[in-house]
This record gives sequence, structure tokens and C-alpha cells, in this order.
Amino acid sequence: MLVEQYDLTREQTKALCLPLFTEDYIPQPVEFASPPKWHIAHVTWFFEEMILKKYLDGYVEFDPQFCFLFNSYYAGVGERTKRFERGAITRPTVSRVYEYRDYVDASMRMLLASNPDQDIIDLVMLGIAHEEQHQELLLMDLKHTFSLNPTSPVYSSSRDLMEEKDADHGWVDINQGQYEIGFVGQGFHFDNELGRHTQHLAKSQISKALVTNGEYLEYMKNGGYDDFNFWLDEGWAWRQENNVACPLYWRQIDGEWWHYTLSGMRRIDLDAQLAHISFYEASAYANWIGCRLPTEFEWEVASTEFSWGNRWEWTSSAYQAYPGFEIREGAVGEYNGKFMINQMVLRGASVVTAASHSRASYRNFFHPHMQWQYSGIRLAR
Amino acid sequence: MLVEQYDLTREQTKALCLPLFTEDYIPQPVEFASPPKWHIAHVTWFFEEMILKKYLDGYVEFDPQFCFLFNSYYAGVGERTKRFERGAITRPTVSRVYEYRDYVDASMRMLLASNPDQDIIDLVMLGIAHEEQHQELLLMDLKHTFSLNPTSPVYSSSRDLMEEKDADHGWVDINQGQYEIGFVGQGFHFDNELGRHTQHLAKSQISKALVTNGEYLEYMKNGGYDDFNFWLDEGWAWRQENNVACPLYWRQIDGEWWHYTLSGMRRIDLDAQLAHISFYEASAYANWIGCRLPTEFEWEVASTEFSWGNRWEWTSSAYQAYPGFEIREGAVGEYNGKFMINQMVLRGASVVTAASHSRASYRNFFHPHMQWQYSGIRLAR
Amino acid sequence: MLVEQYDLTREQTKALCLPLFTEDYIPQPVEFASPPKWHIAHVTWFFEEMILKKYLDGYVEFDPQFCFLFNSYYAGVGERTKRFERGAITRPTVSRVYEYRDYVDASMRMLLASNPDQDIIDLVMLGIAHEEQHQELLLMDLKHTFSLNPTSPVYSSSRDLMEEKDADHGWVDINQGQYEIGFVGQGFHFDNELGRHTQHLAKSQISKALVTNGEYLEYMKNGGYDDFNFWLDEGWAWRQENNVACPLYWRQIDGEWWHYTLSGMRRIDLDAQLAHISFYEASAYANWIGCRLPTEFEWEVASTEFSWGNRWEWTSSAYQAYPGFEIREGAVGEYNGKFMINQMVLRGASVVTAASHSRASYRNFFHPHMQWQYSGIRLAR
Amino acid sequence: MLVEQYDLTREQTKALCLPLFTEDYIPQPVEFASPPKWHIAHVTWFFEEMILKKYLDGYVEFDPQFCFLFNSYYAGVGERTKRFERGAITRPTVSRVYEYRDYVDASMRMLLASNPDQDIIDLVMLGIAHEEQHQELLLMDLKHTFSLNPTSPVYSSSRDLMEEKDADHGWVDINQGQYEIGFVGQGFHFDNELGRHTQHLAKSQISKALVTNGEYLEYMKNGGYDDFNFWLDEGWAWRQENNVACPLYWRQIDGEWWHYTLSGMRRIDLDAQLAHISFYEASAYANWIGCRLPTEFEWEVASTEFSWGNRWEWTSSAYQAYPGFEIREGAVGEYNGKFMINQMVLRGASVVTAASHSRASYRNFFHPHMQWQYSGIRLAR
Repeated sequence: MLVEQYDLTREQTKALCLPLFTEDYIPQPVEFASPPKWHIAHVTWFFEEMILKKYLDGYVEFDPQFCFLFNSYYAGVGERTKRFERGAITRPTVSRVYEYRDYVDASMRMLLASNPDQDIIDLVMLGIAHEEQHQELLLMDLKHTFSLNPTSPVYSSSRDLMEEKDADHGWVDINQGQYEIGFVGQGFHFDNELGRHTQHLAKSQISKALVTNGEYLEYMKNGGYDDFNFWLDEGWAWRQENNVACPLYWRQIDGEWWHYTLSGMRRIDLDAQLAHISFYEASAYANWIGCRLPTEFEWEVASTEFSWGNRWEWTSSAYQAYPGFEIREGAVGEYNGKFMINQMVLRGASVVTAASHSRASYRNFFHPHMQWQYSGIRLAR
Repeated sequence: MLVEQYDLTREQTKALCLPLFTEDYIPQPVEFASPPKWHIAHVTWFFEEMILKKYLDGYVEFDPQFCFLFNSYYAGVGERTKRFERGAITRPTVSRVYEYRDYVDASMRMLLASNPDQDIIDLVMLGIAHEEQHQELLLMDLKHTFSLNPTSPVYSSSRDLMEEKDADHGWVDINQGQYEIGFVGQGFHFDNELGRHTQHLAKSQISKALVTNGEYLEYMKNGGYDDFNFWLDEGWAWRQENNVACPLYWRQIDGEWWHYTLSGMRRIDLDAQLAHISFYEASAYANWIGCRLPTEFEWEVASTEFSWGNRWEWTSSAYQAYPGFEIREGAVGEYNGKFMINQMVLRGASVVTAASHSRASYRNFFHPHMQWQYSGIRLAR
Repeated sequence: MLVEQYDLTREQTKALCLPLFTEDYIPQPVEFASPPKWHIAHVTWFFEEMILKKYLDGYVEFDPQFCFLFNSYYAGVGERTKRFERGAITRPTVSRVYEYRDYVDASMRMLLASNPDQDIIDLVMLGIAHEEQHQELLLMDLKHTFSLNPTSPVYSSSRDLMEEKDADHGWVDINQGQYEIGFVGQGFHFDNELGRHTQHLAKSQISKALVTNGEYLEYMKNGGYDDFNFWLDEGWAWRQENNVACPLYWRQIDGEWWHYTLSGMRRIDLDAQLAHISFYEASAYANWIGCRLPTEFEWEVASTEFSWGNRWEWTSSAYQAYPGFEIREGAVGEYNGKFMINQMVLRGASVVTAASHSRASYRNFFHPHMQWQYSGIRLAR
Repeated sequence: MLVEQYDLTREQTKALCLPLFTEDYIPQPVEFASPPKWHIAHVTWFFEEMILKKYLDGYVEFDPQFCFLFNSYYAGVGERTKRFERGAITRPTVSRVYEYRDYVDASMRMLLASNPDQDIIDLVMLGIAHEEQHQELLLMDLKHTFSLNPTSPVYSSSRDLMEEKDADHGWVDINQGQYEIGFVGQGFHFDNELGRHTQHLAKSQISKALVTNGEYLEYMKNGGYDDFNFWLDEGWAWRQENNVACPLYWRQIDGEWWHYTLSGMRRIDLDAQLAHISFYEASAYANWIGCRLPTEFEWEVASTEFSWGNRWEWTSSAYQAYPGFEIREGAVGEYNGKFMINQMVLRGASVVTAASHSRASYRNFFHPHMQWQYSGIRLAR
């Protein structure tokens, strides 16, 4: 069963890469993104480094240089390539990286066939979740790279991932009181969801539907990007310095609004959910319309009463440790805790999130100026 | 009575400037600090702009250019000098700014003698609190400027403000349960303290004493600045990029540790409270010693059981709105809410904080890399 | 004959790319370099844009987007991709670019078979020279990209291009007097070589041999990189800021000096000609040894009396127009004149320069901090 | 006689500072400029460090810290304050620096009364020339600082230094032939003027008058700042990045062109000589009008046949060593040679240049993007 889940995840990654040409695996045009080749090697390295090297007797490392090349932020594992030089690494070739995947997969199957103990199972589950995260990052990064190409390449003509709509509208009531927050149950979860604890919430309401492109366009037409009153001070500085005047990937062509999607350039669908906005933009929009963003606790409490899963949703909560948060020993411990500063929590999931990777207690996080994730707005008041 | 409080505050500002030469009023060597002349003009401008222009009949503006010159972030009031060019503004001269102060003070006394209504009283209270904040900033900024001078100028030979010690040690117990957080009472308070609300806290302990220079030196000697394991990812990047290896103002001279103080260069007192560290450093130290920083809620709840007031204390809480936070109308509304992103809350007060400016519900905030405020560490676990 | 020269040049470019994998065609890790794919497309675009579109009746553009994608600095031709985003352009694929080359080649052969007039011939000659320049750039850029790869990829095991030695030593005497400088003759030449004119030279001497790795290592061991006295003010700032302490590509491994070459990591050959140094380094070395760099006029005058051609040689001459320099009409006129500021002239040729691209009047030029060209030092006094 | 020249120069410096308030002595808003206090201390330090310490028996240094504080680029003399922190140095006070001047002046008079030998006389002459240079820099820097002040401070109401006009027009003919270039005679000169040598010039013409504000405005109205064809590649990048669209200090107010002068804001005088333009702007203007800038050799040869001295004039010559240029031993040797890279020569003198500091062989130099010197355009063809 675990082996099936493992195989499925590994197959999904490969399937996502089917539309790619060799050339597409290489570029890293911005420091916050990574090349597809790096993603597919890095998730493999995780299994090799964290599991096979320690737990599979007689395992022979595929290539000693790969640890240096495909480690990411795990400083505990040793030196690594400078993040912004990932796009320079043309060798090993893409085929060689696929050989690496096959080699590690074969070894993982051997290990999984040997009745592994719970420690190993936990790490494999973590490795699967880790790969699912990188599946999403791979598509986010690819979209960003493709968007810089004047030819607007098409990743998939059938799947533009940008036309999701809400059926339900109106508001969910949240009553004042105490609520238990955080992961509960048996399945996989990250360390940052643990520490189930009590939160006292005041009375509030949260919207059943996400903000649409049409609603946001209305805000744009009313000068939302030009009135500092609605913006956080640093948000306004960001908007000014980068001359931001619409969501990432939107472009006005002959007076009409289009956006780059993984299906190429498409007309904006006014009824579809808005995406690719920063926290700064989300916060300004919420102020303009006289609402606010929900806290992550409000979101979690109300999440059974609205539909979610097509867009990550900015919350008003800074990404911080739950009470009793413990950092795990060793390199695995670097997973989440290191990033608990200057980032905001997003809840939900997106159309590029692996289905098995979606749960109400999930805490995603990005810096407030980031736009390349599929992020939208749910209002509260 | 209000007029006495007004006069007292205005006198305190002048008293702080007594040791200054005209030259000292001018420089702005870093963007985050401001020249003393700017501070003493800006606090005066606040009274003129927010109060006199609106509420004193027949009031004649002292100089129409001052609004442009001495406005700060109040975008609502109009254009203003670029922040980083404040140090270029030699005219008006210092004496002219003191004339401005006298002129505004005379007008304010007229207004306060006229039985002003509650709106005005509230604004005057805010103006006084605002000036008290800038009294502290003035000394922080001056210390930073003086610290760059190889001659280590002495501001006050009697008051080095860096030798405060805790008498009490051990831990305060915080019981699990619900607590009311936020300002309560009649006195002055900022908008960000309002919204008294319930917080549920888990059981914890908080230290009665702040971390001392000696304890921190021990950590330095044990390689605290060289082991990324204790640091947040962005903290480690900051430490590397800026080559930080000790608190701001510390210097090793012939093997001994000294620091620049407002009394000039002094030997480090090992028993005194540590100061001038960033949140990143505070967090790494807490990790190293196996503790953590308290949340701002834990701090507020326990604050009656330890002595505080000599150092701002980093908490683990991001600076965010309390439930129901409302932004006030107009420029005054820009006071606090605009900054609720990427900053961490500090609680307490410092030796350069005005005495009347200190209360348990006070929420100070700085970016996590800032060191020039008098900030120290109180541990929790 | 011209068609043969055309075909030969085009074949040479392809031959240079034989050892490349598809992946190697993509990256642009630094702004001053370009991806191999861009080079092979851009030189093709030059023929299409400057010649075929204007002079071949009925010529149909291969792909209208290519003009935007593969234009370089020719602002006169229209909009172009931002220079630093060339590495993001994965589509068109490498094979598509080779199709483009074939298509343009076929059309060029038709044009060349049609008895073209002198204007066309001149442009074809320019296009050939242009492609030869990019052949050199392609190898320079590839070496730079490969050098960032911890696996030190091998481009060609047989040709490391870094072991050239001088047979002849001693000094050439240059007599005081008037000399004619600049291109003379019938063959191809660039606009910047024209304007043959008189220069009066003082008596001097110029070395027959280039500085060797061994001589430079001696300088390094004597603290050449640590004594500002030998350096230009901006050179010293560059050296400090970038922490430069050896030629580009040199690395000290276990106390021994190695360097990255297109044959992979190799031990430094002490007797071989030094390469990959900036003008700042060349100037400091010359000062240290009590000599100077030659002017480009001295170099040209004496060039018949020493052997040259393995390394570009820094001169002490700033890159400026010869008297009577004329900018040609249209986009072709942007060729050289635009760059006559802040660059220094190099004379000679290098091991990666096309053989037919080498002549004594040739004026190459780079910014004084650039190191990635094959540049060495010839002393004068 | 030398003592009189010394006294006169020192008095001139003081006279230039008469209109300053203490505040004006402090700011350094940009790295390329220095505070007035620094200038008046630095020129004094030159006499103390280079002359008194070595040649006056029993001389006692005024204050040992001043060497560190007021050294500039003379790395040979030891550590010095970071250039961009000069504006932070409020102590020593301005009066203390004037005491320093008096102390050094008294000592210098003693030395000069003692029948000094030629080495000392040469150094004193150099010190005087050095102070004259800083007199000009002081006014340039002050103008720049004042220009940032929204109140447009007036340095001198009678002397705006920006209304100089040429009486003579037309062209001077330069015949083809050999000319001797460089300093000749007995008076003071800098090392960079030495090495009198032969230059062969082609036939050319040089304008008798400088370009006027009116002529330049005509160019602006014809889109000179918007057509890349006239610009050097790096000039165009500079213009785009800094959004330059007029000379430094020009401002359009209600459709009229004004400029900041040391007499405050003044209307542009269309007939007056243009000033405060960069080499990039000068070069683009010359291209636009179908001329070019003269070489420094053409300028020197023709300089007897036109009037000059109100504006530094950009030449097309890069700042490089004359043949046989020798760097003097010791710190004095750092005077000029260190800067012979990436700068362009200006000839002439300006209205803020000391009268005794003006000669036809003088080689001034600035980076091509600099605008804060009084620089104008003389055309050649």
C-alpha cells in the first residue's frame, strides 16, 4: 500500500513532465523559482539522502555529486549549490536525472518490500508529501518561466487551470467561543500543523465564495492600485517600486484584459476566481471593499461550510509556531520551522495541488509580495 | 492639567537636546533613522497639522513649507520629503526650528486654555504620546550616528543607560486558561492596544530576569553565531550577508569586549542586561539554550510578576491587528495599522522610553533585523 | 567563393556545437553572457534581417517572432527581449533553431547565386565576421556556464586551449616617429579600424612574449592582490568588492593551483601564457613589475616583430573613435560606435577566435573588469 | 611671496564659507560629494600630513584622530573613514575645525619663514592647488545639497554663476600637422600635464562659442532625450534608468524652464552657456547636431583662439597617461594616476574655479555620467 502510494506519486511527477521538451527543464529566470530538472532530481535526492543511505543495507549512492547539486536548504546535510545558480547546471542531463529516479525507485521498492519500521514509513510519507509539494512548485515555476517567453508557450491546451467558479455565495457565521485548532487524526501531516490547541474566536462572518476576476477588475477600475489609503505601508512601497497595476500574468491588449495561463494567452473570465495576487494586493482589496481577510483559525473552523481547493487563500495570520511546536532532530527538522518569519499563512489548496495533499489543517506560507502561487481572496468581516 | 502635561513633554524634548551641538542635529547616515532636527520639528508639525490648523480659530501656519519638510509617513496630508533625504535639509536652521516650537507651543497653550472638547483632548494626548515616542527615537538615532564616529562622542558622561541589572531570578508560572488581552482603563493608549479580547494560553513559564551580557558572551564563545541550526533561515542569511558576529555597538579591542554607549566606549558589564540585538539573534539564542521567546500574550499576562522597563523585549508574536481593530478616519488613522506586516512585537519599555509612556499593554514593533533599539531577551519555555 | 566562405563559417558554428547536449544550449547565468541557442539563432537572424528581407525577392520570413527573440542591441530594428531574460526562452526548441538556420542558409545560397551587388556582398562579409565573433563568444560563454557547475563538464578532452607558450623572448624596439595606424588593404574590416591616420610615437620597447602563469603566480605570492599601490583606484575597489585573488577559473585545491578549462579541471602550466584576467589585474601586474601596458598604436606598429594570436592582449588605450570615424546609416551603424565609452582596447586574437578573423588592425574591446575573454598581458616600457 | 599665496588661498576658502550656517557644513547626501566641513579640514590635513609632520622640527600634531577623519583616498597614509560616512561625523565641531586651520596656518607660516628648500616649496604649491580644487568642489557639493532642499536656499543673491555668455561665434580652423601637447613653462602644474609630447592632428574646426541653453532646449524639444540613435549605448541605459530628461538642476514649473542656482531658483537664460550636463548628454547633443566633441589635443591647440574659463568643457578624450607619465613616490603619488580609467577629460575652467587655477594644459576629469560639475559643450567637426 505504501509502495503503491509511492509509485503513484512518482508517476504523477513524470506525468506532469510529459509536455516538456528537454529545453524546458533547464531555466531558472528568478531566484525564488527552480528549474524542472532540479525539482525532479531534488525530490529523488530526498529519498536517497534521508532514507536509502540510512536504512537500506548495501545501498550504493547513485552519484556522490548529486547530494551537492540537488540539496536545497538542508544546511545540515552539507554544502550545496548556490540557489541562484541552479539554472546554470546543464549536466547531469535530463536523461541522467531520469536514470537517477529509476535507480532510487528500484531501491525504494526493495526497502518498502522489507517490512520497514514506523520511522521509515514516516519518512517515506514525508518524502511523498515533499514530492507532492514540488509537483505544485514545478507547475508554478514553469508557468512563470513560460510567461516570460514572448511566444506564450502552451503547456496543456486542455487544462488552463484558471476558470474555476464558486457555485455558492453569501456568508458563513462563526460564533464566538473556543475552538480546537490544528491537525487531528491518523493521516499524514506536517510538523507545523501539530500542537492542536484552543483558540478563542470572536463572532465573525466568512464568505462562501472567493473574489472573482470581475469583482477585482471593478476595484482596479475604481483606482484600487492608486490609493495608498487601502494599502499596508510596505505593500504600497512594493506596488510603487515594481509598478504593479494588475495581478501577475494579466496583460491589457487593445483595451481587453488577457492573462497568461498554462494553456497560453486567454481572455479573463470575469466570473472565475481571481488568482496570482500577493498578500499586499489581497489586503488592499479587502480594505477597499470594507472587509478584511480571515485569520487562519477562522478559516479552519468555517472550512466545512464552504467549498475550497481551487485556490490558496491568503489569511491575515503571520506564519508562526503553534504552542508546543517542536523541531525534529537532524536535517528533517529543517522542514518548516526555519521559515516562521516574514511569511503569511495561506489555507486551502489549489488546482495544481496534488489531491492527496489537501486538508483543512494544512498551513501553506509565502512572503507577502509573492504572486506566482495560485493565490486568491476569501473575505471575512 | 493637560497643558502641564503638554509643557512637560515639550520641555523633556528640549532637555534631551541640551548636550547637542548644532552639528549633531543634522545627519541621517542610515535610512531608518532621522536627524534630531527632523524629530523636534516633526513632533511640532504634528500639533500644528493635526490640531492647530483645524481647531484654533485664526491660527496662522508658521511656514507653509514646513508641512512638506516635516511630515513623515502621513501620505494623507500630502507630498513629503523623501525619507532618505532628511539629512540634506540644512535649512531651516536649528534655531528656526526652535522658533517653530515656541510658536506652536504658544498657540497650543491658547487652545488648551479655551476649554477644548474631547476630540481635541484626545488628539493632544496622541500628540504627547507621539512626541514621547520620538524622544526615544531621537536618542536611538543619535546613538547610531555617534557610533559611526571614530572619536566615540560622549552624549552624557553620567548616563550610559547600559548597566541595568535584574535583582530577581527564576521563572514565573503561567497556568493554562483564558485571559483577557489588550488595553483596559481610562488613560492614554494607542489604537493597536484596543480590542480587548480573550486568548487561550497553554501552561508555560517565563523568566523573571532578562538575559545578561555574560550569558550572551557564553553563547558567542560557544559558536552561537556560527551554527545555522539555531537560526531562522532568513536570520542566518542576514547574519551571513552583514557579517554579524556580536550585538550592535560591541567591539573587541585587544581581546576585551567593549561597547559604544551614550557615555562613550565602555567595557561590557557581564551582569548587565543585554541590549541592541535583533529578533533573529534573540530567536537563535533562545533556541541554543533550549527555550523560546514568549508570545506577547504570555508576556502581558505574566508582566505583573517580574520587573520590566529597562529594555524592550522581543516576543515571538508577529505584529498583527487585535480582533475588531479599526483604522481611524483621516491621517491620524495611518498611525499604527499601516505597519502590521513583517514586524515583530516587543513588549515592556526601555531606559530611553519616557516614564509616562510605559504600560503592560503597550505594543512596540520593529523589523526582525533591527538592532538600534534598546532590545533584549526574556526567555520562556 | 563568397558562398563557400559563407558555408564554411556556418559549418564552423555547427561544428563548435557538436559536443553540446540540448541542455547546454539554454542557460544564461550572467547578464553579460548569452545562451548558445541564442548565439546560433542571433547570427542567423542577422542574415535574415539585414540581407534577406531587403534583398531577396519573395523571401518569406521564417517566423515573425524570431526578430523579437533574437535581435540583440539593434534598437533600430525594433523591440527585443530583455537581455537578462534570454535564458528563460526555452521555446523555440534547439531543433527549431537549427531548422531556422537551414532555411536561412538555403535562401542565402539563392541570393548569393544571383550575382549580388557590392552592397550585398559587403553585408554578407559583415554577417560572416559577425558570426565569427559569436563563435568566440559562444565558447567564452559556455566556459563560464560550465565553470559554475561543480561537476566541471568537459567540452573537449583534446583541446583545453590554455597551454600556449611563447618561443621567443626579449624586447622589440620601437623608434620615435610617425606611424600610420588603422586598416589598409582590400579585405574585410570593421568600421572602427577605418580612418587610417598618423600617430606620433615616443621611443619605447615592447615584450616579445606574453606574461606566463608562472610569472603571475610569483606576483600573487608577493602579495600583488594585497597592495593597493599597484592598482587603479577603481581596480582596487573591484578587487575588494568581489574578493578577487586570482585569475578567473583558477582554484587552489590542497595547496596546488588548478583552473577550469574546456577540457575540465587542469593543473596550471607555469610556462603557459596567462589568461582570463581583467584590465585592472593586467595594469596592477605591469605596475608591480615596473613596466606598463603598450598603447594600441605601439602594439600595431610592433606587431610584425612578435608572435601573437593565442590571447587577446590588453592595451593601455581606451576604446575611442579614430579621426573621421563615421557611423553607417541604419541598424548596421549600431555595430561598434555605440560602445566607445568605458572600454579598453585589446589587440591580437585568441585560441577561440576564428582564424580568418585575425588581423593586426583589429580592435577588440571589453570593460576593464571583464575576465571571461581569453585575455593576457604583453608588457611595454 | 609663497606665504602670501598660501595666505590668500586659505583666506579664499574661508570667504567661500561666509554665507554658510553651521548646519550647512555637515551633510553628505550623495557618496560622490563631501560635506563642507570635511573639505576645509581635509585641505588643512594635507598641509599637516604631507609637509608639517615631515619638515617642521618640533611640530606637534593638532589631534591624532584628524588624520583618520580627514584623509581622503590616500591609502598610503593609513586607514580612513569610509567615504560615504563623512556626513555622520558631527564632531569635531565646525569651530574646532577652524581652530585646526588656524593652528596649521601658524605652523605653515613658521615653516615658510624658514627659507624652505625646493621640495617643500613644491609641496606647498601642490597643497595650494589642492585647496583650490577643493574650493571648487565645496561649491559644487553645496549646490547639490541645497538643490535637494525644497526651500531652494540662496547661497549668494548676487552671484548665480549661471549667466555667462559668449561674445564670439563661428569656427576656429585647426590645420593638419604635428603639435606639442602638455605643460610647458615654470609655474605650477599637475603630474598629469607633464610629458610634453607630439600629437599629429587631422584638419578640423572647433567652435568659438559654447552651446547655449536655448540651443539645448531646441534639442530637447526635438526629442533629443527620446531617440537612442544619438546616444552611446551606456549613455542611453543611464538616461533610461535615471529617467534623465533635462540638465541637472533644471525644473519645469507651469510650462516654464527654471533651474536651481546658488542664487536660488532662476528662469533659464536662453542665451547663457549650458551647464551641468554629463558626457553622455554632451555626446548625444553633438551627434544630433551633426558635429562631435573635440579631442583634448584639438582643444589645447586651438585654445588661444577662443575665450574659455566659465565652464568645464567635455572633450572626446578618455583620461589617460601622457607618454612617460611617472607616478611620484609616496602618498603624493596617489594624486592623479590612480584615476586614469573610465573617466573623460574636461578642459578649460569654470566660474567656480580659482582664478590662479586655470591654464590651457589643465586636465580635469569626471566619469561620463557626472553632472554636478559646471560642465558644458564646445562642438568640433
